[in-house]
Amino acid sequence: MLNFSGMSSRRHARSGRRRGPTETRAAIASAARARFASLGYDRTTIRGVAGQAGVDPALVMHFFGSKQELFVAAMDLPFDVEDVMPKVLAGPRDEVGARVARFAVGLLEDPEARGVLTAIVRAAASEPDAARLVRDAVATRMVAAIAEGLGGADAELRASLVGSQIIGLVMARHVIAVEPLASLGPDALVAALSPNLQRYLQAPLSG
Amino acid sequence: MLNFSGMSSRRHARSGRRRGPTETRAAIASAARARFASLGYDRTTIRGVAGQAGVDPALVMHFFGSKQELFVAAMDLPFDVEDVMPKVLAGPRDEVGARVARFAVGLLEDPEARGVLTAIVRAAASEPDAARLVRDAVATRMVAAIAEGLGGADAELRASLVGSQIIGLVMARHVIAVEPLASLGPDALVAALSPNLQRYLQAPLSG
Repeated sequence: MLNFSGMSSRRHARSGRRRGPTETRAAIASAARARFASLGYDRTTIRGVAGQAGVDPALVMHFFGSKQELFVAAMDLPFDVEDVMPKVLAGPRDEVGARVARFAVGLLEDPEARGVLTAIVRAAASEPDAARLVRDAVATRMVAAIAEGLGGADAELRASLVGSQIIGLVMARHVIAVEPLASLGPDALVAALSPNLQRYLQAPLSG
Repeated sequence: MLNFSGMSSRRHARSGRRRGPTETRAAIASAARARFASLGYDRTTIRGVAGQAGVDPALVMHFFGSKQELFVAAMDLPFDVEDVMPKVLAGPRDEVGARVARFAVGLLEDPEARGVLTAIVRAAASEPDAARLVRDAVATRMVAAIAEGLGGADAELRASLVGSQIIGLVMARHVIAVEPLASLGPDALVAALSPNLQRYLQAPLSG
């Protein structure tokens, strides 16, 4: 279900074996993710990403075409949104909040997925250009997938409210590390979040 | 109730009148806020802040002592936390979520306060050093003020959960601008947020 780009390429890099095109592309995306997260959009260069991935800058351009395309690829969510969200939303509607909470908290408990998600949120915060790219390439797509699985009036608004809580969780728990939220166990966190996500997804929004 | 540092200094700068120490300090803090938000913690220099504020770098050091102290001062919340939070939390407990929602949405509707709050969140996202300073100087203080006003078991956890929703609102609505949340009117937003904040503040958290 989860596709953590960059994992296999790193394993091969350590073993010294020559990488194929898929692995090289994943290594470049992984290096780009690290640099966009630490340097922001503006300061990250094709040359710097190429250096970190151990490839020629021309190869980065060959795979991604532009810095903007590279950013969008590097910020891709660590799961297939259109495949996964309908499955998370399917099932009893009075437990949909709990299923979304378990899915989100579960993702964030995985170090590799947490790294990608915190990198996306931090990159979005770095500059207006990066925020716009994250909105168009990640947030809008995520909202559309949740809204389609949910259906009904206000589906997009409900999805974007859920998004605001998940983004806030990433920031408060994993980026700023506000206590006691940062140290709360995953089960207690799921219990704390579930009824709030349930309300955003199913209850009347106007009072 | 609200204290927007930097407003008066800018007015005087435009009129060409010589600034007093309070106004100069506010102008430096305002310039620092802008540069920390746009450049991140690492790339922001005392010299750059001084240049933007139109003062000598030595004057920045005279007022703030260090880049770290300057950051903490620049990231100060646009209201007196210890004074305001008890007032927001006082009153009927079954409406405390609505009062917190109205206060947070009202702050974010004010361009000056919104600028400070988005700058704080963006700075926290920029680098681990800045995240730690925001945690120690802003988030922990905010959680303590809400928890003290709230009282009871789990008060700190409740406060940090409320914080996660407000930080996520700043990111999703004002930084990333996810639709339709970004365009939602303030009254509809208060209605959408209030029951969720009410639950974090008052309802059982474990189910």
